[in-house]
Amino acid sequence: MTKRIPRDKHNDHSEAMAAERRQFASETTGVKFEHLSHYAFTPELTAGNIENFIGVAQVPVGLAGPLLVNGEHAKGEFYVPMATSEGTLVASYNRGMRLLHQAGGATVSVVDDAMQRAPVFIFDNARAARDFGEWIKANFEQIKQQAETTTSVGKLRDIEQYAAARMRYLRFNFTTGDAAGQNMVGKATQAACEWMQSKYQGSCRYMLSGSMDTDKKHSQLNTLHTRGKRVIAEAIIPNAIIEQVMGVSSATLFKARFISQVGSFMAGSVNTGAHSANGITATFIATGQDAANVAESSSGIVYVDLHDNGDYYFSITLPSLIVATHGGGTGLPTQQECLSLLGCNGPGKVYKLAEIIAATVLAGELSLMSAVLAGDWVSSHDALGRNR
Amino acid sequence: MTKRIPRDKHNDHSEAMAAERRQFASETTGVKFEHLSHYAFTPELTAGNIENFIGVAQVPVGLAGPLLVNGEHAKGEFYVPMATSEGTLVASYNRGMRLLHQAGGATVSVVDDAMQRAPVFIFDNARAARDFGEWIKANFEQIKQQAETTTSVGKLRDIEQYAAARMRYLRFNFTTGDAAGQNMVGKATQAACEWMQSKYQGSCRYMLSGSMDTDKKHSQLNTLHTRGKRVIAEAIIPNAIIEQVMGVSSATLFKARFISQVGSFMAGSVNTGAHSANGITATFIATGQDAANVAESSSGIVYVDLHDNGDYYFSITLPSLIVATHGGGTGLPTQQECLSLLGCNGPGKVYKLAEIIAATVLAGELSLMSAVLAGDWVSSHDALGRNR
Amino acid sequence: MTKRIPRDKHNDHSEAMAAERRQFASETTGVKFEHLSHYAFTPELTAGNIENFIGVAQVPVGLAGPLLVNGEHAKGEFYVPMATSEGTLVASYNRGMRLLHQAGGATVSVVDDAMQRAPVFIFDNARAARDFGEWIKANFEQIKQQAETTTSVGKLRDIEQYAAARMRYLRFNFTTGDAAGQNMVGKATQAACEWMQSKYQGSCRYMLSGSMDTDKKHSQLNTLHTRGKRVIAEAIIPNAIIEQVMGVSSATLFKARFISQVGSFMAGSVNTGAHSANGITATFIATGQDAANVAESSSGIVYVDLHDNGDYYFSITLPSLIVATHGGGTGLPTQQECLSLLGCNGPGKVYKLAEIIAATVLAGELSLMSAVLAGDWVSSHDALGRNR
Amino acid sequence: MTKRIPRDKHNDHSEAMAAERRQFASETTGVKFEHLSHYAFTPELTAGNIENFIGVAQVPVGLAGPLLVNGEHAKGEFYVPMATSEGTLVASYNRGMRLLHQAGGATVSVVDDAMQRAPVFIFDNARAARDFGEWIKANFEQIKQQAETTTSVGKLRDIEQYAAARMRYLRFNFTTGDAAGQNMVGKATQAACEWMQSKYQGSCRYMLSGSMDTDKKHSQLNTLHTRGKRVIAEAIIPNAIIEQVMGVSSATLFKARFISQVGSFMAGSVNTGAHSANGITATFIATGQDAANVAESSSGIVYVDLHDNGDYYFSITLPSLIVATHGGGTGLPTQQECLSLLGCNGPGKVYKLAEIIAATVLAGELSLMSAVLAGDWVSSHDALGRNR
Repeated sequence: MTKRIPRDKHNDHSEAMAAERRQFASETTGVKFEHLSHYAFTPELTAGNIENFIGVAQVPVGLAGPLLVNGEHAKGEFYVPMATSEGTLVASYNRGMRLLHQAGGATVSVVDDAMQRAPVFIFDNARAARDFGEWIKANFEQIKQQAETTTSVGKLRDIEQYAAARMRYLRFNFTTGDAAGQNMVGKATQAACEWMQSKYQGSCRYMLSGSMDTDKKHSQLNTLHTRGKRVIAEAIIPNAIIEQVMGVSSATLFKARFISQVGSFMAGSVNTGAHSANGITATFIATGQDAANVAESSSGIVYVDLHDNGDYYFSITLPSLIVATHGGGTGLPTQQECLSLLGCNGPGKVYKLAEIIAATVLAGELSLMSAVLAGDWVSSHDALGRNR
Repeated sequence: MTKRIPRDKHNDHSEAMAAERRQFASETTGVKFEHLSHYAFTPELTAGNIENFIGVAQVPVGLAGPLLVNGEHAKGEFYVPMATSEGTLVASYNRGMRLLHQAGGATVSVVDDAMQRAPVFIFDNARAARDFGEWIKANFEQIKQQAETTTSVGKLRDIEQYAAARMRYLRFNFTTGDAAGQNMVGKATQAACEWMQSKYQGSCRYMLSGSMDTDKKHSQLNTLHTRGKRVIAEAIIPNAIIEQVMGVSSATLFKARFISQVGSFMAGSVNTGAHSANGITATFIATGQDAANVAESSSGIVYVDLHDNGDYYFSITLPSLIVATHGGGTGLPTQQECLSLLGCNGPGKVYKLAEIIAATVLAGELSLMSAVLAGDWVSSHDALGRNR
Repeated sequence: MTKRIPRDKHNDHSEAMAAERRQFASETTGVKFEHLSHYAFTPELTAGNIENFIGVAQVPVGLAGPLLVNGEHAKGEFYVPMATSEGTLVASYNRGMRLLHQAGGATVSVVDDAMQRAPVFIFDNARAARDFGEWIKANFEQIKQQAETTTSVGKLRDIEQYAAARMRYLRFNFTTGDAAGQNMVGKATQAACEWMQSKYQGSCRYMLSGSMDTDKKHSQLNTLHTRGKRVIAEAIIPNAIIEQVMGVSSATLFKARFISQVGSFMAGSVNTGAHSANGITATFIATGQDAANVAESSSGIVYVDLHDNGDYYFSITLPSLIVATHGGGTGLPTQQECLSLLGCNGPGKVYKLAEIIAATVLAGELSLMSAVLAGDWVSSHDALGRNR
Repeated sequence: MTKRIPRDKHNDHSEAMAAERRQFASETTGVKFEHLSHYAFTPELTAGNIENFIGVAQVPVGLAGPLLVNGEHAKGEFYVPMATSEGTLVASYNRGMRLLHQAGGATVSVVDDAMQRAPVFIFDNARAARDFGEWIKANFEQIKQQAETTTSVGKLRDIEQYAAARMRYLRFNFTTGDAAGQNMVGKATQAACEWMQSKYQGSCRYMLSGSMDTDKKHSQLNTLHTRGKRVIAEAIIPNAIIEQVMGVSSATLFKARFISQVGSFMAGSVNTGAHSANGITATFIATGQDAANVAESSSGIVYVDLHDNGDYYFSITLPSLIVATHGGGTGLPTQQECLSLLGCNGPGKVYKLAEIIAATVLAGELSLMSAVLAGDWVSSHDALGRNR
């Protein structure tokens, strides 16, 4: 007979039940749990975060910094907790932060903010779908009102429309306060859709997701229209610093960039930078973000310029960085400590956190660029600079 | 004066140094660490996994299962540890596993295996680059030999070539044993490139990465040519089960899928499934994988078919699932326990782990599909089925 | 000494000059022109269409039809002139038109209409770029007024904004009457940009194209937000007709479609249909469209559904069909005859033409689908239907 | 009663039948044909090129040149016939050719050559599909032999394999001599597939196209793996020429390029150049190419570099240029004249033609770049160069 974990007790977060589940797993698999069960809090704390709780994964945290941030919300020096088990990652980001510090820090700006649910309405033909699109525009205020009945925080900003066949694909864009907001906008959109279906004169069916959200996966649409926060981190690095740290000139770096761009383009890569996922994932795990959102958050756009005086302008745009300071794992014990370390606990800090993470990503890009050109990654024969 | 963490002690993993760093951070930020410092092992264990160690992030782990897997390496029932702080995730996967169990389990196959480093060689013009491409083909065996001098595990399988302008972009494909292998293939490729540069008669410069790897980011190239393991999980679900569990017919499900596909296509989404990132991330964190690889691993291809008898064939192809049972975080205490729970500790288990994760992903797709159609996500007015 | 065509006489469209150029070319290359010079009009007619005129390319035109169209602008039967030199193309479209006729014709709708010029403004940093974006929203009416000073036809509909680094990428969307309008919107946008630059308080530079137009090339952005006309052609084909014509059931067709979709997705194809470029190109050349716009116009989205009664719903969405009935080559002699053949000469007919072309494309998709399944293209052993 | 063109006479290319069809069309639509019917050859010549022949579209042809080409097949100066009705196009290409001439001409190389048919085989599950893939590798020589039984020209080069679900997607790559070869490879692939199906022990069904060809549509796969010819055109332009012609420095051009790249990336554009479709389409129509292949041929990759001495290296890679000097419309009267003008009539000239077209495209890119920067397209306030 198949053994099972008691099914009706998924949400029993007592220590007794946790122990019973571990006991069950040990008997079934022969594994002894000495570490998983070593948590520093009562399991009840995880209610709302997990079902069938059996313990905790312990992920090492290293501290990188100081990271100098010139944000609109994050200002000054920060020490960034990074949860990872990949050796050299923290050291590498630390090196980038030092370089960034020398260059006067990272200027960071949140330029857009939207969380989506994207329902699709289905009609008899394309014309009927088009008419519905017009009706939505005419009734936006009421739709917004309906959506916002379900939430005190979420605000419906606008509804994008996309047409194909006899469908009308919509993309409801909300602001969601300190929360990432996926569930919040799901409920609000469903309320709106129910109302729309009941009020619209024409025949009208819908699915709550027509796959244009695009939740837990990257899309070109996210790159264009933002998912979560759109954050841009910029720095201007004097050539002298670049030469000293990397042993090559900013002009050489600049030219090498084009070779990378062509590779990116041919590969159909969703990120023209190096490894933003590393910095994002490590700060996400440390601060209680939903690490599955790395799927979306890891896209990026690098733009560089060479000023006449040799200064190197380096920027990375994160078009779909999904962060929260409230909800999800942000309230858990170690996660709260890490948020506090960044001064991002409590209300109204989500843009600050977004700025710090984007600055961290920028540091990581500079660091890896430096490593590549300084010979760790590249031919000792001056791979790029020779007579170009 | 800017305070700093002692820079020359990044790799001091003693408890004393960890405490000193926490002390520093507390003084700088005012945060007290009561949980981060609560780890169940000596910090020395994290050498090679982290720098500037200050403690551990504790991520709740829930147990889902039994997951019935009909793999070539994983056979039978498994209880899957999932590390997440997103409520309902474990319950949802659990529900999918139940449905999958009823349907006879998931058939899973690893169909390809390759880890890359993708250097680019630069020439005076396109013809010279093309000639070099021919030289590589003629000298593959020697290049392979050079690459493999640096590793006892990694094997160079083949070298893809891509041409643009005066560059030759290469993609070295290795198998890497039980390791994910990013560092292994980096070293091996560099050794090969140095040899190639020294032996090739023509003028020849290179960068170790031309951005076609594409490390820590999704690309179409990964979808086409695999990064890590290419794993396919399949199930055939009788219509009776679908109707019972979801309240709709397999035919309705099948038709709804097309509406999703169009949304995916317009959005330029990199995954035609629902949320593989959720299952991947949760098992990655639990088992010590590099969670930053969710960037690549989260792409997916869903293919479904409706059999004449009403059975629903459902499959998901993960073209770039990056997993390891050796190296990185896999040796850490809680991570080892979770690997053991799956019978994936010790050598020769990486395909088994890949199969289990892919089966888990399949369960999650089925579960969400079920939720969407059963009304949690969708209009109660039979969103799809009405007169179709 | 290098021989040259008289450079200052590019725009001399006299017969004498045409003859002189041919003479020059004959002397230079030894080629005798007997056909190129055989045009049915005075060369002066081509002023505004060509420089260095030497003659005409003669492309065979075949007639396909009747095409039964249920449009909002095109209603009834049409005979479609198709200019091509690819054998079987006209016959194939003709076969599709017959099938479509049997099924009651194609329902076609123009659901969107926009031609773009996409300038980019450059600032000192991302924040300044974001502020400029707000200024644009606040000053849209004046910007619109400035843009429209340059044209009596073009109307500025809206301005999309995209943010990256310290740039603000804009996409000016115009309606352009009967013209395709690329030049019209270029002039209008430049006028607007000059005004914006002069009025905006901040430092502000721009390029008239930031490559988001995307003129003469396909982009995901076009698929999402339309370039030219967004036209949807739909048909509902009874199963009996499908079985009679193709020898397979609509259910088999429907299932086969999924296999194609997966191939399309892996390939990163910009069109999930079969060969819309064929019908578009042939009608474009015949009716004096700019055939280079096939680059953009050839993308498409196929969506199909299987109704409960076995009817097959088939649709193709052309998101970026660029057509005109005024300007460019539409006024040339054979081109005018072909437009007249479709009742699309004279003002106010551009939507009608768009509908006819989309219906033609739909016929071509049905025809090729039929060919594939009926065995011209596929195994005689019932490639798809066996026991699925 | 619906009037019809006599259906069983599609392939009657007599003048009498052409006249009858025109008569029919005139009666049906009221249009008089004075120009369409003005062809310089007997209609019988179009047998194999068209069905239901009614006349010819006359597209103006202008002559651009001299184009200086340093190819492996095309060497020296060429006068390029361009068929278009878009005013300024010929003049613009002409200007680019002059600039290119001053810079010593275009170096052009064909670096790859392949035409595809991409069948898909379907199995019971993913493992069976994988096994079939191994069988293909083991039996490649026999498959090749079978494929080549159908053609004296086409040679099967290799078979790419792509795995998803229980399918094996194949991509048969052929060289096709002087022909574009789509039909040739279709027949050859079908013969191979029939043989494969008959010989393979396992259960095995197939469709001749699994949509990975990707015929008549752009795909990332084409960009990666070539369709038709992969041609690279390069030039090195001294800064002095750039400054003289465009009024800006090569350094300014170089920097501006990055802004375009970011726009391209965000848009998801399939071409990082400006307007290759223009040059390709105009030469395609003139020389009897299948203009529908502009869909594929219009993608491109621009790569530029700034040499230390200020020289500007400019290149465009056309990854999927589909050209022929035999078959299709290449044998028609005006088309033969245009091929002769380029010395590309007769056998063994297809690479020469590919080189000339790619050089033409390069000229067009330079010309438009020049126009943009010299103020036709851009702010008079030195849009890019100010203090960068």
